[in-house]
Amino acid sequence: MEIAFVVYDAFTALDLVGPYEVIAAWPTAHVRFLATEQRPVRADSGLTVVPTDTPASLPRPDLVVIPGSSRPFGPLQDQALLDWVRQAAQSATWLTSVCTGAGVYAAAGLLGGRRATTHWAFREVLASMGVDVSSERVVIDEPFVSGAGVSAGIDMALTLTARIHGADLARSIQLMIEYDPQPPFDAGSPEKAGHELVAATLAQFAASTDTPDLVQATLDRLAASR
Amino acid sequence: MEIAFVVYDAFTALDLVGPYEVIAAWPTAHVRFLATEQRPVRADSGLTVVPTDTPASLPRPDLVVIPGSSRPFGPLQDQALLDWVRQAAQSATWLTSVCTGAGVYAAAGLLGGRRATTHWAFREVLASMGVDVSSERVVIDEPFVSGAGVSAGIDMALTLTARIHGADLARSIQLMIEYDPQPPFDAGSPEKAGHELVAATLAQFAASTDTPDLVQATLDRLAASR
Repeated sequence: MEIAFVVYDAFTALDLVGPYEVIAAWPTAHVRFLATEQRPVRADSGLTVVPTDTPASLPRPDLVVIPGSSRPFGPLQDQALLDWVRQAAQSATWLTSVCTGAGVYAAAGLLGGRRATTHWAFREVLASMGVDVSSERVVIDEPFVSGAGVSAGIDMALTLTARIHGADLARSIQLMIEYDPQPPFDAGSPEKAGHELVAATLAQFAASTDTPDLVQATLDRLAASR
Repeated sequence: MEIAFVVYDAFTALDLVGPYEVIAAWPTAHVRFLATEQRPVRADSGLTVVPTDTPASLPRPDLVVIPGSSRPFGPLQDQALLDWVRQAAQSATWLTSVCTGAGVYAAAGLLGGRRATTHWAFREVLASMGVDVSSERVVIDEPFVSGAGVSAGIDMALTLTARIHGADLARSIQLMIEYDPQPPFDAGSPEKAGHELVAATLAQFAASTDTPDLVQATLDRLAASR
């Protein structure tokens, strides 16, 4: 089973590595890392990874994993990436995403009218692209499987493992990666974090993203909803 | 604040990338990736990363993060790595580990008599190196901060974030990475997984690890304890 983990400039590393650590443990997994060019790719916080493949060497994957980014608009405008995604969709049994990665399928014209989840701060954008956006942590609308923000990729990949290989393998991989989460705080969703923290986090985020207008619009909406 | 994320052949990528995604969001973080040689380093499931530094260019980090490995004995015998860890320990305020990474501090002679946690399947090994091994998910015994297996690095890093920068930043980062875990199964610890799954998982692991004798000993102990 050819697994294409997609990397592009400024991708978020945990979006990719969470599912990778789960899916690479499948007995049938042939793990590949695809970029549109064969050169090292730098994640948004500095980790640099080396792709194994380009579109020419991996035209027909069985499963695609697309991570998100804190600067999410770059990949949505990357025609070489979108061309490959459209081509890969013809062979792949599963098209998965984490975080804002769902936007890549939408930009490729594949996700219109389908259900998907994404990072909480990206829901409006994804909805504006014609997607039926959910706030669930994992959404399956075959062949699409989407996870919410960043760390949700682990839950997405375990859910998909169970779907493809059964619950026993999913539980075994969960045990091997000791995924018994004990977050020291309970602030992992906007609902749990509350208005003040959401606004403060977005304000901080606005300073570093490529979409300050978008973040400001979300802030304005939050302020109006209080 | 100079952060040294250590990479070595066959490290487990999620061990490293979990803490990286949290710590790189600190306002003071200067993120570095240290290897003993300046060449790409391949993780145990195939992800290849490019280090930014070698011991010569990063002699005095403020914080060290050492990941574990499914083939954990390599780094314990890497004298160049152990030499650097001993040197780094003289400047670093915090010496952190995930999974079997705690063994590197022990092999460097730094962790004897100190409390630490590690991957559940590595507890006996770490104890045999003179460490007071805990089964907790995160253990702080300053300057050491250790996380249990693989995914526990996220909890470790959020705990450390709160200790250094306060709970507000930890909660903000938790929200940004949408760390609201919803594992589809409850098999993330040996206690929760139960004997059958633990034994089956270890038997599968024995086929791929560099320590089949060690895994067999753990299996024998489990069988004897039933």
